[in-house]
Amino acid sequence: MPAMSAFPPEAPSAARRIALPSPFRLQAGGVLLGAEVAVETYGQLAPQRDNAILLFTGLSASAHAHSHAGDPSPGWWEAMIGPGRAIDTDRWYVISVNSLGSCFGSTGPGSINPATGRAYGAQFPELRVEDIARASQAAVDALGVERLAATIGASLGGMTVLAHAVCFPGKSRALVSISGALAPTAAAIATRSLQREILGSALRSGADAATVQQAMRWARKIGILSYVGTDLLEQRFARHQSEPFAGHPSGTEFEVESWLEHVAQKFVRQFEPWSYWVISRAMDLFDFGAHGACPDGDSVVHAHGPSDVARAAAFLDVERALVVGVEEDLLFPVTQQRSVASVLRAAGIDTDYVELSSPYGHDAFLSEEHLFTPVLATFLGGSAAASPPPRRPARDTASRG
Amino acid sequence: MPAMSAFPPEAPSAARRIALPSPFRLQAGGVLLGAEVAVETYGQLAPQRDNAILLFTGLSASAHAHSHAGDPSPGWWEAMIGPGRAIDTDRWYVISVNSLGSCFGSTGPGSINPATGRAYGAQFPELRVEDIARASQAAVDALGVERLAATIGASLGGMTVLAHAVCFPGKSRALVSISGALAPTAAAIATRSLQREILGSALRSGADAATVQQAMRWARKIGILSYVGTDLLEQRFARHQSEPFAGHPSGTEFEVESWLEHVAQKFVRQFEPWSYWVISRAMDLFDFGAHGACPDGDSVVHAHGPSDVARAAAFLDVERALVVGVEEDLLFPVTQQRSVASVLRAAGIDTDYVELSSPYGHDAFLSEEHLFTPVLATFLGGSAAASPPPRRPARDTASRG
Repeated sequence: MPAMSAFPPEAPSAARRIALPSPFRLQAGGVLLGAEVAVETYGQLAPQRDNAILLFTGLSASAHAHSHAGDPSPGWWEAMIGPGRAIDTDRWYVISVNSLGSCFGSTGPGSINPATGRAYGAQFPELRVEDIARASQAAVDALGVERLAATIGASLGGMTVLAHAVCFPGKSRALVSISGALAPTAAAIATRSLQREILGSALRSGADAATVQQAMRWARKIGILSYVGTDLLEQRFARHQSEPFAGHPSGTEFEVESWLEHVAQKFVRQFEPWSYWVISRAMDLFDFGAHGACPDGDSVVHAHGPSDVARAAAFLDVERALVVGVEEDLLFPVTQQRSVASVLRAAGIDTDYVELSSPYGHDAFLSEEHLFTPVLATFLGGSAAASPPPRRPARDTASRG
Repeated sequence: MPAMSAFPPEAPSAARRIALPSPFRLQAGGVLLGAEVAVETYGQLAPQRDNAILLFTGLSASAHAHSHAGDPSPGWWEAMIGPGRAIDTDRWYVISVNSLGSCFGSTGPGSINPATGRAYGAQFPELRVEDIARASQAAVDALGVERLAATIGASLGGMTVLAHAVCFPGKSRALVSISGALAPTAAAIATRSLQREILGSALRSGADAATVQQAMRWARKIGILSYVGTDLLEQRFARHQSEPFAGHPSGTEFEVESWLEHVAQKFVRQFEPWSYWVISRAMDLFDFGAHGACPDGDSVVHAHGPSDVARAAAFLDVERALVVGVEEDLLFPVTQQRSVASVLRAAGIDTDYVELSSPYGHDAFLSEEHLFTPVLATFLGGSAAASPPPRRPARDTASRG
């Protein structure tokens, strides 16, 4: 499978692996045998086991959200986590999970399929955002946490927070959804499906590694242009041309082009192409409103028929919520964050809504920690300031369907 | 040259061809021999020859802006031009030119290079927006029009209007720049340079026609996503999936994807890939502020050194201007239209600025004629209502440099 050679078969990760129940049945019907997720934790689980926060990532992040003894390199949310930080590890026990389907230690298309002895590649079963939530919850169970203090996620993670809330009513006291959505916009689907078309064209044709990497670079560039605010590019690069005028060594002509090439090349060296493909598609298929009661009444499922966010929201059992949007976000526009907040409020959840402004656009949560720190610290401080509210048993979903 | 086979060597066009001066020297130093531009005209030139309007197109349009006896198919601005329309052909004589470098009858990369007897392809000399303006002005000269009543253009055409104004002071009494810019944003450069990278990769590798067409489709899809407003896609397609669920015959999954595929395929059948490449690059290189006096003082040139819009604007000799922006335009944001209006006003030009709102975004001028009609009709009506202002001789640029 030459297409697979674009990615090292053994993804480096200092994260611990937690086995999922086997078989692990996926939302769309597929089954994984012997699957696992890579998990990092920061802080200490309190004796009452009531201080755990589950962190969901964006499309391309590993579980390495923060540096630790086993991996001192900075994590993807280094400035947001730690003693005295927004997510204060003197108080909270943070569980960070590499998404199912990804490539940093969790089972994904780059993993060996036990049925064939070869990497799954195109044979990886259809993944949904709900599966990412369910695999992460399995890790929470394995860590002995009966009920979470909060779930937190941005971008895909902001969707996964909502999927987790509807799949596991009562399993978390609070949720924080940043730059997420109840479902993608048509424009987001268009930009992601184009990335998958370009990438899939190379992957499915059995192209050589260089061709797959080229497709991956192009796909990533389209993605980056949907993440980054246009004002940021203007401030940084304007129309500056690379020196010498005749062309940058990379073959690029404008500085914005050189930058894009640099970040795309870096990404291609790190990420498994089929993982990018399946997680990207999971995002496009996410639809909070598709949740309803299954016939036997004992869990929520992806329902048939029209999407109905109120029907889905009736399953929620969360005490408090924080929804954060960024005004300049083109991929998950603030209109979507307002919808999330509105649905949560209509479901009777005490919901804070904060709209930030940042030239980083959708990527702001990764770059503008100073904006997000007070917002998260206030919300989480409020959670911890008073004595915790009385623990309620997990709701019986059958009685609510 | 297999890459050329993606486009029919003889572009169909009922437009008349007007020969350019030969050699025709390009802004960046290249030379074209025996070049010509395709031109359509609508309405009648008045005996005083003072009612001519020069129309510049967007990146991909032909000269066929309106139906006529030689070509009864609807033109790209059919609803805006005609008796009683915004550009009233009972009053105005409209000159519509296919841009130099394009492929609908004007000399471009798909044309035969007389030096080799083969299509130019990658050997077409570097094109600038100023060259499009200059070739079009040569057509105006050939038609016996000494001074234009107005120049009008949208998108690339909105840039070309500005290039024309600075290259030919006094040659037009008025200008209308719609969704144009003094220079592209970094984000626009990023999205267009990525299109050129994908397209150029196929064209330069000597790939077969199918591969070039695939690259062209991808490039065009990236382009379309930068033109169309995200709200429009949401209203039309939301998250609807193609029937049957398993996939559309085109291989697409979501309706927005099927639509994008359809419009991209249509475009690929019509447009010469190298034309797309050279005109796209001309847009990225456009910089109104780069204009200054050349050493011999008898024309404006692309100056070396920092861009200076005030220096360039000092060359302008236009009585009235209309600048129109669309709030939802992501590619040429309204901040750019405001800058155009502000520079024209600072240069002492009587300038109307109108900001429209349309879910079509950058493409609004092609689809929302009802919004643009009153704006243009008012502006052009004002030009014609009173007796024309006294004709001034073309300014001596040497005295203004």
